[in-house]
Amino acid sequence: MKAIFPLILAVGALGASSMASAQFAKPEDAIKYRQAAFTLMGNHFGRVAAMAQGKVAFDAKVAAENTGVLLTVSRLPATAFGEGTDKGAPTRAKPEIWKDAAKFKAAAEKMTAEVAKLDTAAKSGNLDAIKAAVGGVGGSCKGCHDDFRAERHSGG
Amino acid sequence: MKAIFPLILAVGALGASSMASAQFAKPEDAIKYRQAAFTLMGNHFGRVAAMAQGKVAFDAKVAAENTGVLLTVSRLPATAFGEGTDKGAPTRAKPEIWKDAAKFKAAAEKMTAEVAKLDTAAKSGNLDAIKAAVGGVGGSCKGCHDDFRAERHSGG
Repeated sequence: MKAIFPLILAVGALGASSMASAQFAKPEDAIKYRQAAFTLMGNHFGRVAAMAQGKVAFDAKVAAENTGVLLTVSRLPATAFGEGTDKGAPTRAKPEIWKDAAKFKAAAEKMTAEVAKLDTAAKSGNLDAIKAAVGGVGGSCKGCHDDFRAERHSGG
Repeated sequence: MKAIFPLILAVGALGASSMASAQFAKPEDAIKYRQAAFTLMGNHFGRVAAMAQGKVAFDAKVAAENTGVLLTVSRLPATAFGEGTDKGAPTRAKPEIWKDAAKFKAAAEKMTAEVAKLDTAAKSGNLDAIKAAVGGVGGSCKGCHDDFRAERHSGG
């Protein structure tokens, strides 16, 4: 609770419309939040990708559980790249995120769309569909990282 | 929200679920994963608690969105406290987590149960029910932190 009450105090006014208007008390909070989301996304996507690649035995139920988590969490990072969150904690976010906000938004939307396709594929239980969708998600990860993620942390 | 329901069914009984047997390549991966989950949980719980405390205007839709995320993510940390994950990255996890595993498991289950109550309350749109459930979740956070979370990081 000690860690939670300051957060409660710090939470700013939320707009009427959902997560997209989420506000953070400090840039550091937004940076840590989006990094946390990416950590979980990488893990849960990795578990499904390992099945698609034959590195782990395919289990349709487990795949769908993981894509369900991935789907929920994939919607979170885009809420945490507001103006002024380019520094405040170590971050690999490139200035291009804010310089070319429309392109970044498109990349984020591409990612969530590909994740939604993967979740649909996983729920179908069809491994070939999952393999194809894993490729789509992986491509969206790479595309965004290439353009908007630096090799090293900075801004801390 | 339909993506969440299979997860609930699967993770309700720790030990029997596939998520609970999630494996991590390195202890560091498990530590970072569970910390990421707690970061998101603190944030999304904080947003609802702020409404319950009147610090932010109550918006039933936003509250339910946040508890939906919280519900999904609250199921994750318990999967990442396997044997050997007491060190490998800076962590505040106390040795008692593994020494008194039954008590820790009970605390984790208490938390997820309280979060489920909060999600139900949020979906009802009843602010009084949300206030009561926020108290329950907050108490479960504090109880577990008091017993199982150290003041400082160690083990990195």
